[in-house]
Amino acid sequence: MQTIRYGGDYNPEQWPEEVWHEDVRLMREAGVNLVSLGIFNWGIVEPARGEYDWTGLDRVMELLHAGGIGVDLGTPTASPPAWLRKAHPEMRLVDRDGRTLAGGSRHGVCPSSPAYRDACASIVEQLAARYGGHPAVELWHVHNEYGWANVECYCETSQAAFRSWLEAKYGEVDRLNDAWGTTFWGLVYRSFDQIEAPSAAPPGVNPALQLDWKRFSNDEHIAGYTLQREIIARHCDTPATTNFMIPNCEDMDYWRWAGKTDVVANNHYLVAEREDRHIELSMSADLTRAVAGGPWMVMEHSTSAVNWQPRNLAKTPGELRRNSLAHVARGADGLMFFQWRASRAGSEKFHSAMLPHGGTDTEVWRDVAALGNDLRSLAGVVGSHVQADVAVLWDWESWWALELEWRPSVDLGFRERVEAYYGALWRQHVTVDFAHPEADLSGYRLVVAPSSYVLSEAAAKNLRCHVENGGHLLVSYFSGIVDEHDTVHPGPHPGALRETLGLRVEEFHPLREGETLSVEGVPGSAFTAGTGRVWSEHVRLDGAREVARFASGPDAGRPALTRHDLGRGTAWYAATALDDRTGLDALVATALDTAGVERPQDVPEQVEIVRRGGHCFLINHSGQGAEVPNLTGVDALDGTAYAGRVPVPAGAVVVVALD
Amino acid sequence: MQTIRYGGDYNPEQWPEEVWHEDVRLMREAGVNLVSLGIFNWGIVEPARGEYDWTGLDRVMELLHAGGIGVDLGTPTASPPAWLRKAHPEMRLVDRDGRTLAGGSRHGVCPSSPAYRDACASIVEQLAARYGGHPAVELWHVHNEYGWANVECYCETSQAAFRSWLEAKYGEVDRLNDAWGTTFWGLVYRSFDQIEAPSAAPPGVNPALQLDWKRFSNDEHIAGYTLQREIIARHCDTPATTNFMIPNCEDMDYWRWAGKTDVVANNHYLVAEREDRHIELSMSADLTRAVAGGPWMVMEHSTSAVNWQPRNLAKTPGELRRNSLAHVARGADGLMFFQWRASRAGSEKFHSAMLPHGGTDTEVWRDVAALGNDLRSLAGVVGSHVQADVAVLWDWESWWALELEWRPSVDLGFRERVEAYYGALWRQHVTVDFAHPEADLSGYRLVVAPSSYVLSEAAAKNLRCHVENGGHLLVSYFSGIVDEHDTVHPGPHPGALRETLGLRVEEFHPLREGETLSVEGVPGSAFTAGTGRVWSEHVRLDGAREVARFASGPDAGRPALTRHDLGRGTAWYAATALDDRTGLDALVATALDTAGVERPQDVPEQVEIVRRGGHCFLINHSGQGAEVPNLTGVDALDGTAYAGRVPVPAGAVVVVALD
Amino acid sequence: MQTIRYGGDYNPEQWPEEVWHEDVRLMREAGVNLVSLGIFNWGIVEPARGEYDWTGLDRVMELLHAGGIGVDLGTPTASPPAWLRKAHPEMRLVDRDGRTLAGGSRHGVCPSSPAYRDACASIVEQLAARYGGHPAVELWHVHNEYGWANVECYCETSQAAFRSWLEAKYGEVDRLNDAWGTTFWGLVYRSFDQIEAPSAAPPGVNPALQLDWKRFSNDEHIAGYTLQREIIARHCDTPATTNFMIPNCEDMDYWRWAGKTDVVANNHYLVAEREDRHIELSMSADLTRAVAGGPWMVMEHSTSAVNWQPRNLAKTPGELRRNSLAHVARGADGLMFFQWRASRAGSEKFHSAMLPHGGTDTEVWRDVAALGNDLRSLAGVVGSHVQADVAVLWDWESWWALELEWRPSVDLGFRERVEAYYGALWRQHVTVDFAHPEADLSGYRLVVAPSSYVLSEAAAKNLRCHVENGGHLLVSYFSGIVDEHDTVHPGPHPGALRETLGLRVEEFHPLREGETLSVEGVPGSAFTAGTGRVWSEHVRLDGAREVARFASGPDAGRPALTRHDLGRGTAWYAATALDDRTGLDALVATALDTAGVERPQDVPEQVEIVRRGGHCFLINHSGQGAEVPNLTGVDALDGTAYAGRVPVPAGAVVVVALD
Repeated sequence: MQTIRYGGDYNPEQWPEEVWHEDVRLMREAGVNLVSLGIFNWGIVEPARGEYDWTGLDRVMELLHAGGIGVDLGTPTASPPAWLRKAHPEMRLVDRDGRTLAGGSRHGVCPSSPAYRDACASIVEQLAARYGGHPAVELWHVHNEYGWANVECYCETSQAAFRSWLEAKYGEVDRLNDAWGTTFWGLVYRSFDQIEAPSAAPPGVNPALQLDWKRFSNDEHIAGYTLQREIIARHCDTPATTNFMIPNCEDMDYWRWAGKTDVVANNHYLVAEREDRHIELSMSADLTRAVAGGPWMVMEHSTSAVNWQPRNLAKTPGELRRNSLAHVARGADGLMFFQWRASRAGSEKFHSAMLPHGGTDTEVWRDVAALGNDLRSLAGVVGSHVQADVAVLWDWESWWALELEWRPSVDLGFRERVEAYYGALWRQHVTVDFAHPEADLSGYRLVVAPSSYVLSEAAAKNLRCHVENGGHLLVSYFSGIVDEHDTVHPGPHPGALRETLGLRVEEFHPLREGETLSVEGVPGSAFTAGTGRVWSEHVRLDGAREVARFASGPDAGRPALTRHDLGRGTAWYAATALDDRTGLDALVATALDTAGVERPQDVPEQVEIVRRGGHCFLINHSGQGAEVPNLTGVDALDGTAYAGRVPVPAGAVVVVALD
Repeated sequence: MQTIRYGGDYNPEQWPEEVWHEDVRLMREAGVNLVSLGIFNWGIVEPARGEYDWTGLDRVMELLHAGGIGVDLGTPTASPPAWLRKAHPEMRLVDRDGRTLAGGSRHGVCPSSPAYRDACASIVEQLAARYGGHPAVELWHVHNEYGWANVECYCETSQAAFRSWLEAKYGEVDRLNDAWGTTFWGLVYRSFDQIEAPSAAPPGVNPALQLDWKRFSNDEHIAGYTLQREIIARHCDTPATTNFMIPNCEDMDYWRWAGKTDVVANNHYLVAEREDRHIELSMSADLTRAVAGGPWMVMEHSTSAVNWQPRNLAKTPGELRRNSLAHVARGADGLMFFQWRASRAGSEKFHSAMLPHGGTDTEVWRDVAALGNDLRSLAGVVGSHVQADVAVLWDWESWWALELEWRPSVDLGFRERVEAYYGALWRQHVTVDFAHPEADLSGYRLVVAPSSYVLSEAAAKNLRCHVENGGHLLVSYFSGIVDEHDTVHPGPHPGALRETLGLRVEEFHPLREGETLSVEGVPGSAFTAGTGRVWSEHVRLDGAREVARFASGPDAGRPALTRHDLGRGTAWYAATALDDRTGLDALVATALDTAGVERPQDVPEQVEIVRRGGHCFLINHSGQGAEVPNLTGVDALDGTAYAGRVPVPAGAVVVVALD
Repeated sequence: MQTIRYGGDYNPEQWPEEVWHEDVRLMREAGVNLVSLGIFNWGIVEPARGEYDWTGLDRVMELLHAGGIGVDLGTPTASPPAWLRKAHPEMRLVDRDGRTLAGGSRHGVCPSSPAYRDACASIVEQLAARYGGHPAVELWHVHNEYGWANVECYCETSQAAFRSWLEAKYGEVDRLNDAWGTTFWGLVYRSFDQIEAPSAAPPGVNPALQLDWKRFSNDEHIAGYTLQREIIARHCDTPATTNFMIPNCEDMDYWRWAGKTDVVANNHYLVAEREDRHIELSMSADLTRAVAGGPWMVMEHSTSAVNWQPRNLAKTPGELRRNSLAHVARGADGLMFFQWRASRAGSEKFHSAMLPHGGTDTEVWRDVAALGNDLRSLAGVVGSHVQADVAVLWDWESWWALELEWRPSVDLGFRERVEAYYGALWRQHVTVDFAHPEADLSGYRLVVAPSSYVLSEAAAKNLRCHVENGGHLLVSYFSGIVDEHDTVHPGPHPGALRETLGLRVEEFHPLREGETLSVEGVPGSAFTAGTGRVWSEHVRLDGAREVARFASGPDAGRPALTRHDLGRGTAWYAATALDDRTGLDALVATALDTAGVERPQDVPEQVEIVRRGGHCFLINHSGQGAEVPNLTGVDALDGTAYAGRVPVPAGAVVVVALD
């Protein structure tokens, strides 16, 4: 049965039983068909080691099932109980500064701790044995937010695990020495047991060590997930997932997580003070879809304000609906909120919920119920796919490496450039996929590499083949500089892309804080003029031709934007940070035109248009009504027939089932 | 004998004996009649465990007594000697980050340490036995600045003491679980020994745990005080005190300290760079008077600059006198300085003193001597009371709770709003009392609640009764939200005040950083227009009527200021942050007028007027001369007779003994 | 043979042997005659305790020697090998916060550790025995950058060493108590073993303790150097040095290092974002020359960008040459770079090098080769001296003491004022020496004391004699305040200079953040008007006369600049912070004129003119060509004859061999 999953985290343990009955009644009223249960109830269902109390959970499961509401059953391991911390003080997380973290919150535990892992295995075994066959359980929700707060632990257990991980990876220590370039500063290791984790140290810690530490830390969480997943699989074949935090968790490399879950589920919260937060949401959804390789679900978002940002602005009228349907447009088959009913106590009591403190006589509640209704009308989108002609490269390893200490400029930012290029594409109504640099790019007319600082040789070859075979490539500065060990590719920069781009960079010229420079198109170029920030560099052409040049700054008179026709394709290069109105939109338009990527015409910039399967989603983020031309079909929500033009009122969402 | 106590901290151990003779001579010249002695001399009088050297102290006491100067005798426990730290390394303070603090300064000690407490008891026993009957001793000065630097200790001893404190408070762990709402995140405890202090941990530590930790830490210092106070009482019946730091110490809940000391003594230092520092001083004095419940004394203030602020601006001409007499006007019966003679060495050598490095040929010295002379003329004020028609609610627990992590906006500030409302009252020449929310409010026409985030049910009832019985109440946003465990009151916000205010708040709408919005009075309202900051919210009227509405921002068109006539009184509500010139003065004036609070008319804003008993203090903080009308009496300092109008020159202070 | 030493750090261990041959060939092409070798190769030459592998080093030495390139042979102790850290965990550095620092970088080691020192002695013994007689070795390079990252260690070993150091210094603990003023806060010690290092503690740690801790930490590094130096001396009489970091290392007191090395070698890196970075370079060179007492060498600077600043701006065209020859002009007889060949891996791969990633077809390489050529033409300057009529006082102890916590204003800065006065002199083409306040000043017409906060009695007497004997003295505010224990000199400020300056300061009046005030010259004064920042004070004349007065601010109407004719000389005083264009240039010009210091006339401000021995260096830092009049001689680089006027093109350097 195809339905969009709809609901939220449900924490009945915070309320007396009479409230549970009201909850089920209201869930039905709102169209809720799935709730996440038991995410943090370890301390309640296992009050002491090996003693279990299932009374409450049994009762709630029964009530939900009777109400026709499915359960996404959590394993509660993200918040180990106080008795476990007391019994195993060695499982407490030691942070980078050597502090042993206290309890009173969640996640303050070493992910590699044997005592913790054993206790996790025990409670999951109990849960899976008891509820594996329960008819309400539609999905398992393993742990919660891997990568939140306890990404890295520096305790002795973790350090030993790191050394074992390295030994498994490299086999012999001299292979590690070669990979890490340890001759620099004489940081050579003679055995794996000489290696220390990169906790607080004098500046200049070996960057390759730091990257492997990040890989190890990510893998430890995957191992924690896998341990639980396998136990569940021994008891039932119900699908399982865990909730990712794309793209706001820098630390988890979700490319490595891809395929570990039966369905990709993501938590996404707006950065409330950002004016372009809806674009950031689109990016999140597109990247999640890339990790999923198809439809996915929102496991957590919020009906309105959160509570952990500096200023927790509430959503504006209609924003809840726009956000929700934007996720659906970009591949979500489920929309879940944190949380069902607002808590009265604890540290998240000011987080919005489906049922706020103010109760059902509130706009939030009415919006939640209306959304539930809409989703029933959109069941037809379930399982359908989003098509894109453009791919943006994304690599967590570039994010990690690009933002290590001691780089050319602190103004270099991985997300900064990705968001800049993504935004330019979004404003031109281009739906994009994200891709790993080594992924199959054959389906894309244009590939954009805004921040591919790390590029393996395989990735470099992949990009070159893409161009030679007729693809188009748009690269931003400081890409293709190092390999996966943060070692500079041989020869002039950018070593991995030099030949593909037809140029070399003689020297980097980072700009002063706040400094800008002018860029001017060469005669005959579609690009006329722009303003750069952050970066300039001495580009020397080796096959490429100049599209625009620096008119000021340290490289005045030298190439700023270039184009290289290679094989059957074209490779573009931007040697400075252009922004939306200062040249980036123009550069991206030029590359799109050259690549033959078609875009909707005559549509206001802030009207989002996404085609998913047989549906076209139109989301008007502006305060003015708009019309989208060249579109024919039937309104999926109210049945209106559209022939050629679809009006989209200010702030509204229209979903057209295409003819 | 009624005299205003006048003097300062005296540290003769820093000087050779010949200087002591000069000191006594100059003290007499300046009118000094009390000095605080021995505040930090532990390492000198007890050079090794159980060995005592009283030579110097005996001699100084004798000299002072012979000179007619009383002694406020300190117990030196705020700076334990190096030999004690060496003998008991376990008494060193462990901070929130787990760092064991070093010596070389004062206060770096665990307040719960048995070794420390034993050593305190021993030295106090010795002091009290030796000097309890000394005729010079007029007052005991227990410890120094409880709450400075060592408020909280996270060592194992402290954690054990915390668990005992919790067990004593809650009896059974499930009562604690209920109070703390530990079902949130499954943070349930099964025994008290599973509880950890809230040291460094992942974000989101249970706020109720954090509040009880603050209460415990406060109580540990009260226990330290009480231990010493009881020893002294066994030797003599001389009164005792300790020096509070109102209102600049957030950590000590001085309502809990009230009644522990025989006289309330306060340290107050200006924030030198604030232009309105004299208003902050008034607030300090009024709050200290509230804690004292009557006259009190200044134990420390400064003759000019301090040394521990970023920029230690000196006092301007006349400021020392204005500050000093403002304290007297608001209830002080003593004026003491830190310190008598400026140190040449150590970390406070650039702190001003009564006798500066420059000696007696200095303006500071002349001002000090002139003040001593003035105070002799004001002996008549001693013991008299200040009357106020208006009370402002103040609660350290609201301060603590309101500024925990994970709240709606970081721009919410407890003191920010209290100071805003206090300032509006001050500029309208209204003398106020401060009051705890559960205090008897029957004497006040108007009660102002600028930051009553925490309100117990008893406090809520207290405020409702105040209004129903004909009182007036003015409440600012984000008040009445939670109970004493930081648990949201049931139902829509503000749960504790919803009925009293006649409204509910459907949703909070914190503003962006720096964002402002317009507020417009409804037709017929005395309030015309203003500008709000920080906060907006969706107010829905349930009995109140609209006084002004939002003209912009997220709640444009909705109520911004409301009035609820309830019983025989009125409750006002402000849903945004107005400031002096942007509406707050007008709002406060409206509430004062409605409540029938009379204010001096035709007096310039920066002329402070305070009536204390039979005296009226006029303090001109401006650069222009002023006249205060409707005042008849005799100048208490120079005998001038005033009939109807009292001139107050620029920067001057006039004290009128009323007819 | 007189040649300017030219080259850089050479790290062949990062490259395969075939590259070594290319290196030697290119070094010769660039005129390199010295390389620093083995700075960080401990982990390579001693792969395990007591096992040595000299293969690579032997081979490189041989290749270099065959190529005619000298070796500055490093002892590799700044980066102890991983096996040593593993074997001796107790040698890990403990920082001020109690964190034990990890490896993976360099310098994370306790300088006092016996295990570390023993291991250092062993490897140096091996190196000296093996290479002491090697003909390529021209210089020993002991350790690297003493004072980088591991200045202070707070481990138990260090604390014990500190107590021994104190006992050696003071003999009896009561002499320490007297010096430190421990009666303040009763911080008296009864034995040396009660003393704790000033690690994290409550604020207000005894400043004298902090100063002695800094002296001790400095001395521990000198001891580390001396240990190695003595071992080398037992094997050969080759000169030795270590690389200082003047003036950017605040922690090393290089006056105490003076004389320990056979040649003073300095590392200097521009602060790339500073517009006046060339003036800061001049200051560095002049201060290094003062420490050296004659010619010195640059051990490290950069050909272009570094990698560890926030924004690593590359050098502009010609800047490498201007920087290099400015060092030579100011006394350098050697110019070395970090590093020869840019690394591909590790944390400094984005640091510029003589041979960049881009190879020899780069501007950097061409500039490096051209500079090598120029230096051959300048061999005649080797050993010659720079003459100066003006001395600026510099004292690391004033730097340390002036910037301790709890001082009158955080805007007080040691370097801030030194750089302000130095800049004013530089812009007037005055070459200065730096001097310790107790140094022989008899050769100088004018002595400038911009930041002499600490002045011993001996220094005070030295300055007074200088003036009485006909010298001139220009003193800035907050000088002469304390002695070497941070104890205020007796009587009014500035105690050590009161009589010399003919005034006293009744009170300090620090200004608000960003506040400015006006200064007006008195009638007849050469100084007309200016603007002050940061500071004002109440100056009272006791013999001096007013040159200018404050026209606004807290001391309006009082003296701001004064002049005191004493004996045969004159002492000037400035009571506020004037800057270049706001009065400082005028004040300095007045003092220079009065002192009779001649300056080149009609030379543009940004043309640097320095006379060294028989050569005059002209460096045009501006974008306009200039002519320097009154100069006759021959161009040392191209042989052009100049008679009276020397043209200096924009950005160029001309060196004139004087007739």
